[in-house]
Amino acid sequence: MPVIAVNTPTANYNVVIGRGLLPTLSRRIAKLTGSPSTRLFVVTTPEIWKLWQRKFLASFPKDAKPVVLLHPSGESHKRFAAVESLLEHLAENKADRDSVLIALGGGVIGDITGFLAAIYMRGIRFIQVPTTLLAQVDSSVGGKTGVNLRAGKNLVGSFHQPLGVFIDIDILKTLPPAELRAGLQESVKAGVIRMPRLFRYMESESKAILKGDPKALEKVVTASVKMKAEVVGIDERENGLRMILNFGHTLGHAIEAATKYKQLLHGQAIAWGMIAATLISVERGILPEADAIRIVNTVLAYGPIPKFRAPVQQIVDLTGSDKKNRSGQRRFILPVSVGKVEIVTDVTEAEMLHATEQTLKLMQERGA
Amino acid sequence: MPVIAVNTPTANYNVVIGRGLLPTLSRRIAKLTGSPSTRLFVVTTPEIWKLWQRKFLASFPKDAKPVVLLHPSGESHKRFAAVESLLEHLAENKADRDSVLIALGGGVIGDITGFLAAIYMRGIRFIQVPTTLLAQVDSSVGGKTGVNLRAGKNLVGSFHQPLGVFIDIDILKTLPPAELRAGLQESVKAGVIRMPRLFRYMESESKAILKGDPKALEKVVTASVKMKAEVVGIDERENGLRMILNFGHTLGHAIEAATKYKQLLHGQAIAWGMIAATLISVERGILPEADAIRIVNTVLAYGPIPKFRAPVQQIVDLTGSDKKNRSGQRRFILPVSVGKVEIVTDVTEAEMLHATEQTLKLMQERGA
Repeated sequence: MPVIAVNTPTANYNVVIGRGLLPTLSRRIAKLTGSPSTRLFVVTTPEIWKLWQRKFLASFPKDAKPVVLLHPSGESHKRFAAVESLLEHLAENKADRDSVLIALGGGVIGDITGFLAAIYMRGIRFIQVPTTLLAQVDSSVGGKTGVNLRAGKNLVGSFHQPLGVFIDIDILKTLPPAELRAGLQESVKAGVIRMPRLFRYMESESKAILKGDPKALEKVVTASVKMKAEVVGIDERENGLRMILNFGHTLGHAIEAATKYKQLLHGQAIAWGMIAATLISVERGILPEADAIRIVNTVLAYGPIPKFRAPVQQIVDLTGSDKKNRSGQRRFILPVSVGKVEIVTDVTEAEMLHATEQTLKLMQERGA
Repeated sequence: MPVIAVNTPTANYNVVIGRGLLPTLSRRIAKLTGSPSTRLFVVTTPEIWKLWQRKFLASFPKDAKPVVLLHPSGESHKRFAAVESLLEHLAENKADRDSVLIALGGGVIGDITGFLAAIYMRGIRFIQVPTTLLAQVDSSVGGKTGVNLRAGKNLVGSFHQPLGVFIDIDILKTLPPAELRAGLQESVKAGVIRMPRLFRYMESESKAILKGDPKALEKVVTASVKMKAEVVGIDERENGLRMILNFGHTLGHAIEAATKYKQLLHGQAIAWGMIAATLISVERGILPEADAIRIVNTVLAYGPIPKFRAPVQQIVDLTGSDKKNRSGQRRFILPVSVGKVEIVTDVTEAEMLHATEQTLKLMQERGA
């Protein structure tokens, strides 16, 4: 079973990846917390709980079942009011400083549970058990937690590393195909920015991966997590290297905002964003055209990516309010080859407009 | 001008104490932020702003005045809804990761501003400019931030150290006498737990201190901050030594909760709590009676402390839900001499009942 160590200045923990992990959690968690009597609280959605509660609870003794806190699914519920009500529930259920939260769900559950753990009693421990591919390959590792404001996504949050991450590939069986594909886009990203081997594997084995072959998925997840762990280990707080994880995200976030977070899954918006960033690289002459074609084709292979409607100018304007900007500077991650990117701050509005137009044109031809 | 360094594993900063600091803030802050163009946001109450805005703004150039965010005063507003609305204001005013918040106010403003800074964009910088004695001698130093839940005070928060603390003794001129006295109780606490010299000074100079003599107050504030800085430097996250700062707080918090945070100021509740803890020490025979008399008399000298009504049993029961407890264990800080305390976990309910009864009896005789 692959075990990947994450070592940051604030924490050291393992990401365990395997099949059939869920029914073995109890003893794994007791080992991590150091005590079988630690009080556990699971945060999850009604849908996930219905699907997986039997397996999840299988390993816990009858008198030591975790307390379950249900949170509605969907990005629109990643809000302060929901956080407060979960915090009140924790307090009512006598969660104390030694208690441990377990995030059983996708990115929204992971973000919100991590944030709860970061701020309840000024910080308690938590464990990630991601149930979507997106959460498995990306958001469950690295300690970013967040909730949304009216003014934007993830504008509020903390860095708070989990005590451990348990990734059960078997959980992906119940994942809707569109979500599997959207999650795979983050792995394509991992390949483009720092893992040429992963990229080649995804390029050549798209059939097995898209069929949901567990062995293939385990390989993709493991490589993606390894990349993330390396980057986060070098730059936990995103002062430098970690910014490369935002490849595709500058325009991707703008597309999500322009479509009000309703038309596209996060991974799908990022897919269009990766294509746009790739086109900027080509225009600049910093990325060989052959590499660009491979990147675009591989992104599209993990489609279909839905079409959307939004004015080019609006998308570009929305990149101006990205929270990654500092003192008005837009940051862009541009590929220079398959497996290597550069962080630049001098992408002009004209370049963005052009690349966004080209991307929308491509979308008309090859979007779903 | 006294400058006290705070050095913790996560931050190094100075606490500057002096008179007439407020009209000199602009250049001091620019020095700290490293750039005169950093965007500044002041969080304060309408009352404080009305009193001090002229002096506060005096040193800022016309085109670089901080954005002002007003927050109603009072513990009852230290809630999630208020935090969210302030966060939305920050976003609307384009606060970014380089922006700096300034807490201009008492403990509530400091706690809430620190929390805003801890979670806005996963953490931005902030500066403390405490305007009450309580905030000056205690809450502005050490990085604890917090908001309240229905279930209890400060149940939510973060450890987030400020970039700097500026304590202007002149601000205390407009502080209501009851608040001055309540704040001085935290300095009595500082003396009892770790600063026998400060205790002796407060014991013998209560007249000058209570008159608000600036020199005397500067001395008290400086010694209190020095003590706090030392303790926080040794144990930032309250895993050991820092717990001694909770002397008087176990029963003090219970008294605040029993009186629904309405009848007593925090410092006043702590005053009763210190007396109760002192009585427990005497009963246990771990504190010479002569020392106990000095502690009780000095606490009362900085009164009058208001009387309140609450059943003894209820107060004791409420110590059970203190957030400092772990796995059901109540922590108590007990004085063993003037200037030295012990952390114990074996105080029985009978001891607490007895000490609380004795304290309430004393309150009938000597409370206000």
